[in-house]
Amino acid sequence: MSPKFEQTVKLLRKLPGVGPRQAARFVLALLNKDETELRELGGAIVNLKKDIRFCPECFNISENATCAICHDPKRDNGKLLVVEKVTDLNSIERTGLYQGHYHVLGGAINPLDNMTPETLKIRQLETRAAKLTAKGPLELIIATNPSTSGEATALYIKEIFGGQPNITLTRLGRGLASGSALEYADESTLKHALESRR
Amino acid sequence: MSPKFEQTVKLLRKLPGVGPRQAARFVLALLNKDETELRELGGAIVNLKKDIRFCPECFNISENATCAICHDPKRDNGKLLVVEKVTDLNSIERTGLYQGHYHVLGGAINPLDNMTPETLKIRQLETRAAKLTAKGPLELIIATNPSTSGEATALYIKEIFGGQPNITLTRLGRGLASGSALEYADESTLKHALESRR
Repeated sequence: MSPKFEQTVKLLRKLPGVGPRQAARFVLALLNKDETELRELGGAIVNLKKDIRFCPECFNISENATCAICHDPKRDNGKLLVVEKVTDLNSIERTGLYQGHYHVLGGAINPLDNMTPETLKIRQLETRAAKLTAKGPLELIIATNPSTSGEATALYIKEIFGGQPNITLTRLGRGLASGSALEYADESTLKHALESRR
Repeated sequence: MSPKFEQTVKLLRKLPGVGPRQAARFVLALLNKDETELRELGGAIVNLKKDIRFCPECFNISENATCAICHDPKRDNGKLLVVEKVTDLNSIERTGLYQGHYHVLGGAINPLDNMTPETLKIRQLETRAAKLTAKGPLELIIATNPSTSGEATALYIKEIFGGQPNITLTRLGRGLASGSALEYADESTLKHALESRR
């Protein structure tokens, strides 16, 4: 095997969820592209951090100092929705149903992955909530994933903000997903579906 | 959303089997890497075609003029194993059981994907086989995938070389895969397993 090939495979394996076979397939596909495309992709990766930054307010990705959402005066300052990742924020933005602000934690608490409250943007969430509650009541919407680490993070946030004056804690509704089938739903989903029936 | 982010997502989607969500996850993961790592990966992609070429003999990847296998005098000139992709070649090389030469077609015949005998290295295979048979008898081992397009390619090669003097055509054995279970084997696999029983 070519050492350069192996090296590029190794670099591509650092992408999340990419194993040795997929990485090798990527390199072969890249070898079939023309120079211009390789320069485009390679250049975009080299300059990624120069071109894209994280918003210092909400930690959404941004090309300017603060992101478009934090910058928007039409957004409701009384609502702060807490998500794990930028992709979660995008999913909610795409619905067009939410007009408040966001806070991106950068992950969820998971000691096995070295994700602790300190590595997440939880202190920054406290500072931000304090700033917003100074202006009026705040609804803090916890929208972490319905997974073990997401639940742990939700509990941790609840413990910090629960009982604070001017803050109402809410969570995204749980139950059957649209398009899913009742017979294949797991116990936890059915439990939530039953509890949140109306 | 940040246009630079979207653009990088779009570029990464050109990798085989990468959808919009996985591409977005890749960009976020890359944003969490340090500048050195980004330069390393981006640089490897930009310089990929400068650093890695295809061997003009067998179309394996190579860093020199001809690849290490074609260059090796200990390899058996009487055997030529035809594969679809470089990754297939690597899988066979890893077994350490084959000491002949290879020929990488660059895919399989599939008109829906614009893969025709003309886009594959089949003419080059003919030239190569002619060169090798001039020196002595040649075993041409067809090792395309057991898929529809792989079978079509095997048939096409058989038609070209079948009956040529000095060439023996063989194919990789078919049957039950190691570690698989008879009860889950499909009809085609069982048919091959029965036919090649010994």
